[in-house]
Amino acid sequence: MALFGSPGKLSGLLLRIGQCLFAAASIGVMVSSHGFSNSTAFCYLIASMGLQALWSFGLACLDLQALTSKRNLQNPALLSLFVVGDWVTTILSLAAACSSAGVTVLYSRDLDYCRSPQIPCTRFEASILLAFISWFLLAISSHVTFWLLATV
Amino acid sequence: MALFGSPGKLSGLLLRIGQCLFAAASIGVMVSSHGFSNSTAFCYLIASMGLQALWSFGLACLDLQALTSKRNLQNPALLSLFVVGDWVTTILSLAAACSSAGVTVLYSRDLDYCRSPQIPCTRFEASILLAFISWFLLAISSHVTFWLLATV
Repeated sequence: MALFGSPGKLSGLLLRIGQCLFAAASIGVMVSSHGFSNSTAFCYLIASMGLQALWSFGLACLDLQALTSKRNLQNPALLSLFVVGDWVTTILSLAAACSSAGVTVLYSRDLDYCRSPQIPCTRFEASILLAFISWFLLAISSHVTFWLLATV
Repeated sequence: MALFGSPGKLSGLLLRIGQCLFAAASIGVMVSSHGFSNSTAFCYLIASMGLQALWSFGLACLDLQALTSKRNLQNPALLSLFVVGDWVTTILSLAAACSSAGVTVLYSRDLDYCRSPQIPCTRFEASILLAFISWFLLAISSHVTFWLLATV
């Protein structure tokens, strides 16, 4: 089957590269913003985005190798591995992005911390936005892989 | 197919009832804890659990009706509807539970608010735990329905 974004296809490779880049950008923005380590949720976001970047980078390499050597990645054993890994990473990423978003909303709306110039709320928001984009791309990949596994 | 938890089966009905009960319990604990309205994330948790309770209650009624009248719910149109609704509710529930968990961790670890007796952190944690259980049951249902849709 040649579903959009399936492993071993060019669209799949592009999705993986996108996930990896957005996750790395999210880490970069978060690490460079002052005072992120005061909140556990932001540290967890960095850890979870790091995991996602590694996972997506690994699968991007595998896709690239399959594309160049015209190997077929769509056997049930490999697909199950991809599905389990994708689901774990998707859930961890969404959890990290949402808990950081909860803390940022608390900062900006409920505690009014964002008025003080020491807390760079805009950078936090940018990092969380990048994390959500990365999660969305990963969710597409994982749904496609799950669909392939069910129909293989 | 008679997959565990598929719509129109007894296991599916029990899963739906469980989701509905845990979501209602989560709302109850959160509403009864003092000062939940100071945080936007807790209000969002109540809204999202309300949506999930309504959705699960509706599907529980449908399952019950299908069980008593021996009707088959597994045609592609109905399954697509269930899948889309399940995914939206799953993502909203996980987002709500995680953002509330992020705020609670911030309260207890980073800001040390939980020492003051005005903030009932234990109740918040209990409500979030119930929300996570409810989300987990919903995730099982939605995966089973997605699998059925792919193989139908």
